[in-house]
Amino acid sequence: MKVWLNGSISDAREARIDPADRGFLLGDGLFETMLVRKDHIVFFEEHLLRLLRGAEAIGLLLPYTPEGIAEACRMLLQANDLENVDRAALRLTLTRGPAPRGLALPPNPAPTLLIGAVPAPPPPERRSAALVTPRRNAWSPSARLKALPYLDNVLAKEEAREKSAEEALMLDTSGHVACASAANVFIWEGDMLLTPPDKGAILPGITRAAVLELVPDLGFEAREEEITPARLAKAEGAFLTNSLMGLVPLSRIDGREIPACPKTARLAAAYELLLDAAAKDG
Amino acid sequence: MKVWLNGSISDAREARIDPADRGFLLGDGLFETMLVRKDHIVFFEEHLLRLLRGAEAIGLLLPYTPEGIAEACRMLLQANDLENVDRAALRLTLTRGPAPRGLALPPNPAPTLLIGAVPAPPPPERRSAALVTPRRNAWSPSARLKALPYLDNVLAKEEAREKSAEEALMLDTSGHVACASAANVFIWEGDMLLTPPDKGAILPGITRAAVLELVPDLGFEAREEEITPARLAKAEGAFLTNSLMGLVPLSRIDGREIPACPKTARLAAAYELLLDAAAKDG
Repeated sequence: MKVWLNGSISDAREARIDPADRGFLLGDGLFETMLVRKDHIVFFEEHLLRLLRGAEAIGLLLPYTPEGIAEACRMLLQANDLENVDRAALRLTLTRGPAPRGLALPPNPAPTLLIGAVPAPPPPERRSAALVTPRRNAWSPSARLKALPYLDNVLAKEEAREKSAEEALMLDTSGHVACASAANVFIWEGDMLLTPPDKGAILPGITRAAVLELVPDLGFEAREEEITPARLAKAEGAFLTNSLMGLVPLSRIDGREIPACPKTARLAAAYELLLDAAAKDG
Repeated sequence: MKVWLNGSISDAREARIDPADRGFLLGDGLFETMLVRKDHIVFFEEHLLRLLRGAEAIGLLLPYTPEGIAEACRMLLQANDLENVDRAALRLTLTRGPAPRGLALPPNPAPTLLIGAVPAPPPPERRSAALVTPRRNAWSPSARLKALPYLDNVLAKEEAREKSAEEALMLDTSGHVACASAANVFIWEGDMLLTPPDKGAILPGITRAAVLELVPDLGFEAREEEITPARLAKAEGAFLTNSLMGLVPLSRIDGREIPACPKTARLAAAYELLLDAAAKDG
């Protein structure tokens, strides 16, 4: 497997991250994970925009143009024989780069940009989920950015596994449902689709935004609204969204079976059409 | 400068962190920073114990014995000509190592252990501080562990700098004073020394514990108690503690001057004696 690192493509076994990289030592960086279908990078502009805004939020200058990054992605997909596969995943990792010790920002940062590309498995048809202990913090800049600090999410996912579930559902510190360990969450109440509001405790997902835009076209209504665990427990349907999985119905939450929901299926089909149309355009 | 990485000492410019290391990609790891005075590693056993407990908490097996790590530290100090300097800093970084993508724990992890050693400047005589926006989350496992995710702390420190202060004071999500960006905080109310309780939102520092133990010997009382910002604003003295700085008086909080506090000076002197005694013993 080959990776693109700071301008060069090399074998992943030879590419070298500096041991003084602040991404490694302090989680001081951001990432984006993008789905590739055939030769189309799904929502590339949206991902790049989020990366640029995130970089601005943490005071980091992206050392490449969006066009340069798009070209790097294409070259890397090609180098890994992934240009025409059904599904691949690209991950961009941007860090503040190597620097002397301490938290203070280095005066002349040399950011690290790493791109990886791997084949992506087909999305799961459904997922079971469990509520877990770690909570999202609306007062944490890392929570609303796609930032490297993912240890809480890693531990959330592991706790879900211990509870015989595939996905972890996290509350925020005020006790409302926030998101999964690496996905946004939606629930149905009749024809009303609800998702937690973007108030700092969740990463505002790109698939989440696309779904919110699609909903009115299908004759449903969508609201960003606080969801208590009690409300979640009564939901007649629920699903997760992220860039790699798209829409994935939740089949079980904390042991309670959730029946397959035709509305989720309709929305997922509409989302697939949207991606197909975008692939033809771009 | 040389580093110790997974069993070998090499030039830092040649040591290689794998781009698939979960420490780099997910902040999935822990660290310890230790002060070295002459050839004595201050509170080495306590740091190792915290690292071991942290590793257990995140389901990670430390691939070396404490004796092996002590020996690695000594060899590295020697390789960097730091065995007999007045002050050096050792940093141990332990990660879950390289793994395929995703949050799920790898079935056969190959943890990364990196040790760095650099000269440490003398501790500051005093520090100014400002209250900042990012807050500590008692529901976050990363908050009570010395874990790699430090982006919030990095941004906290930067916000303090923008407010013309040297240190960032962070609240927890319930609005109580928690800690500095990389230090614990103490305030004086008469002969009573107060520090925020160890309820998940703070890292229980090793210097913090040593200070709490010292206090009764000096005829003062110490309590772990919730500190509101209003209480902080009225404190007649305040100081920070961490392994590298020891005790450092706060000279200013949010623009309010804090007079030098003789009790802090007495405590700092007692702490220095404690370190001197430990250096002679070990």
